[in-house]
Amino acid sequence: MEFNKITDELLSAIQAIVGEDAVVSQHEGMEKYSHDETEDLIYYPEVVVKPKSADEISALMKLCNQHLIPVTPRGAGTGLSGGALAIKGGVLLSMERFNQILNIDEENLQATVEPGVITEVFMNVVAEKGLLYPVDPASKGSCFIGGNVSHGSGGPRVVKYGTIREYILNLQVVLPDGDIIWTGANTLKYASGYNLTQLMIGSEGTLSIITKIVVKLIPKPTQDALLLASFGNNESACAAVSAIFRAGIVPSALEFMERRGVEWVKEHDDISFDLRDDIQAFLLIEVDGTNQDVIFSDCEKINEVLEQFDCRDVLFADSSAQKEELWRLRRTMAVSVKSNTIYKEEDTVVPRAELPRLIKGIKEIGSKYGFESVCYGHAGDGNVHVNIIKGKMSDDAWQNQLKDGIREIFELTVFLRGTLSGEHGIGLVQKEFMPVKYTNTHFAIWRGIKNVFDPNGILNPGKIF
Amino acid sequence: MEFNKITDELLSAIQAIVGEDAVVSQHEGMEKYSHDETEDLIYYPEVVVKPKSADEISALMKLCNQHLIPVTPRGAGTGLSGGALAIKGGVLLSMERFNQILNIDEENLQATVEPGVITEVFMNVVAEKGLLYPVDPASKGSCFIGGNVSHGSGGPRVVKYGTIREYILNLQVVLPDGDIIWTGANTLKYASGYNLTQLMIGSEGTLSIITKIVVKLIPKPTQDALLLASFGNNESACAAVSAIFRAGIVPSALEFMERRGVEWVKEHDDISFDLRDDIQAFLLIEVDGTNQDVIFSDCEKINEVLEQFDCRDVLFADSSAQKEELWRLRRTMAVSVKSNTIYKEEDTVVPRAELPRLIKGIKEIGSKYGFESVCYGHAGDGNVHVNIIKGKMSDDAWQNQLKDGIREIFELTVFLRGTLSGEHGIGLVQKEFMPVKYTNTHFAIWRGIKNVFDPNGILNPGKIF
Repeated sequence: MEFNKITDELLSAIQAIVGEDAVVSQHEGMEKYSHDETEDLIYYPEVVVKPKSADEISALMKLCNQHLIPVTPRGAGTGLSGGALAIKGGVLLSMERFNQILNIDEENLQATVEPGVITEVFMNVVAEKGLLYPVDPASKGSCFIGGNVSHGSGGPRVVKYGTIREYILNLQVVLPDGDIIWTGANTLKYASGYNLTQLMIGSEGTLSIITKIVVKLIPKPTQDALLLASFGNNESACAAVSAIFRAGIVPSALEFMERRGVEWVKEHDDISFDLRDDIQAFLLIEVDGTNQDVIFSDCEKINEVLEQFDCRDVLFADSSAQKEELWRLRRTMAVSVKSNTIYKEEDTVVPRAELPRLIKGIKEIGSKYGFESVCYGHAGDGNVHVNIIKGKMSDDAWQNQLKDGIREIFELTVFLRGTLSGEHGIGLVQKEFMPVKYTNTHFAIWRGIKNVFDPNGILNPGKIF
Repeated sequence: MEFNKITDELLSAIQAIVGEDAVVSQHEGMEKYSHDETEDLIYYPEVVVKPKSADEISALMKLCNQHLIPVTPRGAGTGLSGGALAIKGGVLLSMERFNQILNIDEENLQATVEPGVITEVFMNVVAEKGLLYPVDPASKGSCFIGGNVSHGSGGPRVVKYGTIREYILNLQVVLPDGDIIWTGANTLKYASGYNLTQLMIGSEGTLSIITKIVVKLIPKPTQDALLLASFGNNESACAAVSAIFRAGIVPSALEFMERRGVEWVKEHDDISFDLRDDIQAFLLIEVDGTNQDVIFSDCEKINEVLEQFDCRDVLFADSSAQKEELWRLRRTMAVSVKSNTIYKEEDTVVPRAELPRLIKGIKEIGSKYGFESVCYGHAGDGNVHVNIIKGKMSDDAWQNQLKDGIREIFELTVFLRGTLSGEHGIGLVQKEFMPVKYTNTHFAIWRGIKNVFDPNGILNPGKIF
């Protein structure tokens, strides 16, 4: 696709649509829009535009569609696959001014929010009303809910409460030709034609710009318990995961962490945590509900399961402060690794009982290609984030040979009936590995769908495929 | 779209693909394939074909695509929107021989099944292993799981366990050009390109033929309780529904039934049930879990809520037999109404707190157009089935004026932020009402998507839009 550059005339037209103060056209004001949280990639757009209404976006899309100007939508820029990078220049469409919670409907347990609302802000507001929105990525304190929808983001509580797909009921979107539509209805069930809401979820801003989100809420559990179980090796920890479900327990979180990740958090943060020499892996297990006795009974059953898997120690968090600290251990892992070293993050997902084989395989591939890795993630979902550490790898090996190693990781993932990404999306950096799993038929279908919505290909070009 | 007729030559080619015993080409053998459970519609296909493998379907699709022969896939024929009717003739593709449960993976809590497996058969097989597949439409004893996927079917337990979208992980499908693909991966999370699994769910056999289904399972609750609450009027019963959730309870079923429906069940069936004169509506409420104390406590809280809504009586089922009988009351309602009268069934869905307004409005529309209706359904999801009774309506009014009344019901549904169908699909009979909610933009997108998969339009022509 050949795109055009933004001329002075087009810039004026854009300013006329959104107002001059909503446009950044000078290089120096664009630094924070030039990257996300993906590795060290930097791409400057030609202009940053910060609209505040669907009508403004509609006018902007018409203009850009007519003049073949690429438009890259952007949430909070916390993505891990480069989805929000304006790799073809053009307009970087920041949704930061769409930051209103428009309505919390306590009768229907629904809310309508704009896409630029920070996920944790929204979670806290509904929690005050006794309600739960359970989709809480590690970046919940800074990411936008619109970005979560676009990437099909997850988080620890998917394992009990279901994916974001279960909580997004309806979307207002602006199409590349400027049309504004609602994708569905504000209902818990929907069987009225091809489900466009579901199609938008995970489409990474390549089909439309999301401008309003109708969210399902549920009653908030009133009680929870948090356990940290330590293991002598990764395989035992991973093997315990599926056994917990087989014992009839559905934890509200079941997270895996490798020792190396915990070490890095300890270096980066002031978490007081005694790391025994014989411990190689951890499971962070949360159980929630409305009855403390049931939760204790579930914890006892979990303990019984853990004992069968060479569990060395179980720490039972006995205060809110301790729970918060254990969660911080998990949540700050990505940023801790990142602050210590150059790294790449891959987002593998397999059926959960395949985790031991996945982790073992990743380490073997690392040995073969000479990279260290730190693995952690949502073990209950079979979703493991692989942080590949540059360490002593040469620049040449890092830039060139490593790709073959990453490809082997994805080949293993696919062999184990999994896929490339469970919740980070494909974006820019995983795109080249898509043929590991998908056929020409898949690509033809995806391109066909893209073409239905965006025949000129202006929306987030160069992403996914 | 102009289709061709099946010539003797084509019939021979079809027989060569699937075997002569898998083809019905004589009118007399086709009666059961000429209708489903929708009103009294009858359409005979030219031939009925009963393949037994994806490869056979692939060869068949190539042949039909090349010769422009319509292909209408069919499950058990229990649909309520005419989706399985071969309205353009051609091939009726019966999936009845795809009846194998291929694998139950107790490690991963997944199963792989063929689409022609009866839903209840599958539920019972996994239940024996302590597992739950919670998507149980009223027709579970006869419907196929493939039909459930195609229609986005629901059932009573969606309210707690989520929709069928949460339980279908991956699909093997045959495309109209004969390509066989898997739509996704066998994982609980998926963020790897446009989600084709979700696109197939609810596409009513217009995009592909489903040949294998990978299903998510969860640990089966070990305890439950069932209450039947009776009310003096519909509005009180409906108003109690959202209040139960606001009290922090998520029941595993929350069904609404109008008095007239219960009366018809009593006439049709031998259910011993004392129907007091002052009762106009019922809620059937199930709570499940793993701890009897918690369930009793939830039931007490529900009782407290019900008391605020003019609840006249609460019957607590005290045996398995009584639970079964109360469920039968609900499950046989559609067939009881049908056995008593000519009727049409509409499948409305709104946000749950709008139920009182919906039911009231349906009755007002009925008065205006001179029809009686029996309403019942999944009140916890805001999903109400409206059985419109011919009664004393003239044939002319039934055939002609009634459409305007149905249109008004859907206008009301849409006004209340709902849609035309929550779980039955659009198929043939709701198609004409789609413009009540959807715009030309929606239709253009749907047609575009259809065209990506099926440029010749041979798959289930004349359905949805």
